Amino acid sequence: MKSGAKELEEKGRAARAASRRMACLSAEVKNKALHNVAADILAKREEILAANQADYHQAHTSGMNSAMLDRLMLSPERLAAIAKDVLAVAALPDPVGEVFDMRTLSNGLQLGRKRVPLGVIGAIYESRPNVTVDISALCLKSGNAVILRGGREAVHSNSALAKVVQEAVAKAGVPEGAVQFIENTDRSLVDEMLKLRQYIDLIIPRGGAGLIKHIKDNAAMPVIAGGVGVCHTYIDGSADVDDAVAIAFNAKVQRPTVCNALDTLLVHADIAKKYLPLAAAGLARAGVELHCDKRAMAILKEKPSLKLKPATDEDWGREFLSLVAAVKIVDSLDEALEHIERYGSGHSEAIITQDYSAAMRFLNEVDAACVYVNASTRFTDGGQFGLGAEVGISTQKFHARGPLGVKELTSYKWIIFGSGQIRP
Amino acid sequence: MKSGAKELEEKGRAARAASRRMACLSAEVKNKALHNVAADILAKREEILAANQADYHQAHTSGMNSAMLDRLMLSPERLAAIAKDVLAVAALPDPVGEVFDMRTLSNGLQLGRKRVPLGVIGAIYESRPNVTVDISALCLKSGNAVILRGGREAVHSNSALAKVVQEAVAKAGVPEGAVQFIENTDRSLVDEMLKLRQYIDLIIPRGGAGLIKHIKDNAAMPVIAGGVGVCHTYIDGSADVDDAVAIAFNAKVQRPTVCNALDTLLVHADIAKKYLPLAAAGLARAGVELHCDKRAMAILKEKPSLKLKPATDEDWGREFLSLVAAVKIVDSLDEALEHIERYGSGHSEAIITQDYSAAMRFLNEVDAACVYVNASTRFTDGGQFGLGAEVGISTQKFHARGPLGVKELTSYKWIIFGSGQIRP
Repeated sequence: MKSGAKELEEKGRAARAASRRMACLSAEVKNKALHNVAADILAKREEILAANQADYHQAHTSGMNSAMLDRLMLSPERLAAIAKDVLAVAALPDPVGEVFDMRTLSNGLQLGRKRVPLGVIGAIYESRPNVTVDISALCLKSGNAVILRGGREAVHSNSALAKVVQEAVAKAGVPEGAVQFIENTDRSLVDEMLKLRQYIDLIIPRGGAGLIKHIKDNAAMPVIAGGVGVCHTYIDGSADVDDAVAIAFNAKVQRPTVCNALDTLLVHADIAKKYLPLAAAGLARAGVELHCDKRAMAILKEKPSLKLKPATDEDWGREFLSLVAAVKIVDSLDEALEHIERYGSGHSEAIITQDYSAAMRFLNEVDAACVYVNASTRFTDGGQFGLGAEVGISTQKFHARGPLGVKELTSYKWIIFGSGQIRP
Repeated sequence: MKSGAKELEEKGRAARAASRRMACLSAEVKNKALHNVAADILAKREEILAANQADYHQAHTSGMNSAMLDRLMLSPERLAAIAKDVLAVAALPDPVGEVFDMRTLSNGLQLGRKRVPLGVIGAIYESRPNVTVDISALCLKSGNAVILRGGREAVHSNSALAKVVQEAVAKAGVPEGAVQFIENTDRSLVDEMLKLRQYIDLIIPRGGAGLIKHIKDNAAMPVIAGGVGVCHTYIDGSADVDDAVAIAFNAKVQRPTVCNALDTLLVHADIAKKYLPLAAAGLARAGVELHCDKRAMAILKEKPSLKLKPATDEDWGREFLSLVAAVKIVDSLDEALEHIERYGSGHSEAIITQDYSAAMRFLNEVDAACVYVNASTRFTDGGQFGLGAEVGISTQKFHARGPLGVKELTSYKWIIFGSGQIRP
């Protein structure tokens, strides 16, 4: 343990040293490095898959459930997809060096803000080994050094992938130390890592709510975390019923296990009798179970084809991450807004309406990272938003909110061109 | 104490409730409120000055030093200046509601980012009572509720000013609870405040290094702090000597007690014999004491009019906040860059040079909030940069760096206008 902490500090120091040089790397070198990574993941797939087999075998033996096993597993196809994602990051514009807000003051000083990397990013993640490559690629593109700390269950896979990344980027001239991997999976090392404020500028946790809470509570440096997405779609009285049916279905069913999927459907009383049976029938065909408040239950209960349960207090504000949604009838936009304010997690919220004023009030008054009119909350995603790959989705307001692309891994410095100015 | 913590939590809850309504306040209401504040500070100056007298008397009796007493003291002139600053904040453009990065995706979704307030700002500050008004004005302009916690020594002044602000903004229709003031100056209440993550979105500390460190180490929510400014001016071998003399003089002497004042003068060996005697003579006339390395001492020691001391290791990286500067001769730009990297605090750094490549390398390689070519570091200031009033100067990279104006007290939300889009 002691030696683990010492080794960790050395990695921190090495990452800090590398980060200074990475801030000045050309886009050409960074992109060359990313192309090398993509090529080497394919070239060295046998080693990577062998390492993954070791993790998989161990996890299987120790009784890991099949969903988790699936997340852990790599295959030639999955490696090809990972390599493709790295090339997509290479194709993004370089965020570093962009100068903005440039202006000339009346005293002749020219000043502006120049985008710079944050420095060293610490990534703490669970299970899926592709995160090792994804985060490395995004950090490299944004000129940041990275310290990777993956989960115990994927340590062989992560270690093999990190080695491939480290060797691939070194060949392109990226400073040694730019990508650090912590092999020691002792849990206490996470807490050691969270103390290293002098070496790590930002922690990005990727994993379950427990991991994220632990990191937020204990990190000495800033953290960007998404965490829970409790997403509402509010069907206004004036909604186009076909749109409202299709959007709610998409938001719940297209990928139910993710943070931007629908959790609670709020339906205006004026449209509930017309809308709910149609929406519920479609959702039922996809296997969705609905937890209904009394009024929604009264409308739907006659249909034996539906999977219905009475909603309990715990259903409001619950992130289902499965084919379950809560349903509540509201009497007004205000009631919908109050419900969202009380139970939402500040992730993604939608209104379906043809009423202009209702749409504008919803956009203005809902306090969430992403607020939609007449579209599915499933669009909350860096790729869908045109940011390229994403590091995660932030539900906090500080620094960056919503999908986090490479630009959100940067800061800026003020640059000032003078010609002898002094302050009067 | 217990009741203090409970009262504090009530203030937090009230501020949170007010902040939701403040996010939707029109610029008209906010500016009207600021004009009321400015007018009422003048109209109620007798009450304010009487309260200030009580603080002053108590501080004087308990032996406060004259510099601190001066910071504590209010006068009709100082109140007029405070009121004028409030009107300057009113005159700034409203940062809230600005929509940026708006674009239409290929699926027809229109999306952009809309600037919103952060929510509730907690301000913890010492000594100068004007901070009560300054921070209130900046928070109001940016649509944030604020919880003010000033120092014990100024409690009567702060309380009187907070009351004036609260009444003035209420008259304009700002929601009750928008400006909270904590009268209880029990120190343990600061720690209680730092736990209130559910009510306070950002803490801004204003005060000495000890206060700032305590807050950074203990706050459960984000903190923006400036703190130490160890500022270097590097006189390159190719510098224009007159500019270099004038800029170093201005950076050290124009206001020596502030964070953007010169601390260490780095001088290239090629120009040192010509430059240093001229610079030192001017600085000596203003009473500046120079802590010189051996080579600088060898150049300057013949002049009896100078106040010279041999530099010690503690002089490098020291923030003098007084008429003292350290002087070091360097043999290259690289040596200057290394010195700044090692000893700088990431605040403001300057190069004086006529060499284009040296200027560009300095701008690119120095990692600080503000990097200058041929100008005085004293310009690092929200007002000087054209941001209007400032909340402070950030030396951190996360969220905002350098002078913090009202825009830096905001976040954004993504707004998405759809027409029935679902994710394929």
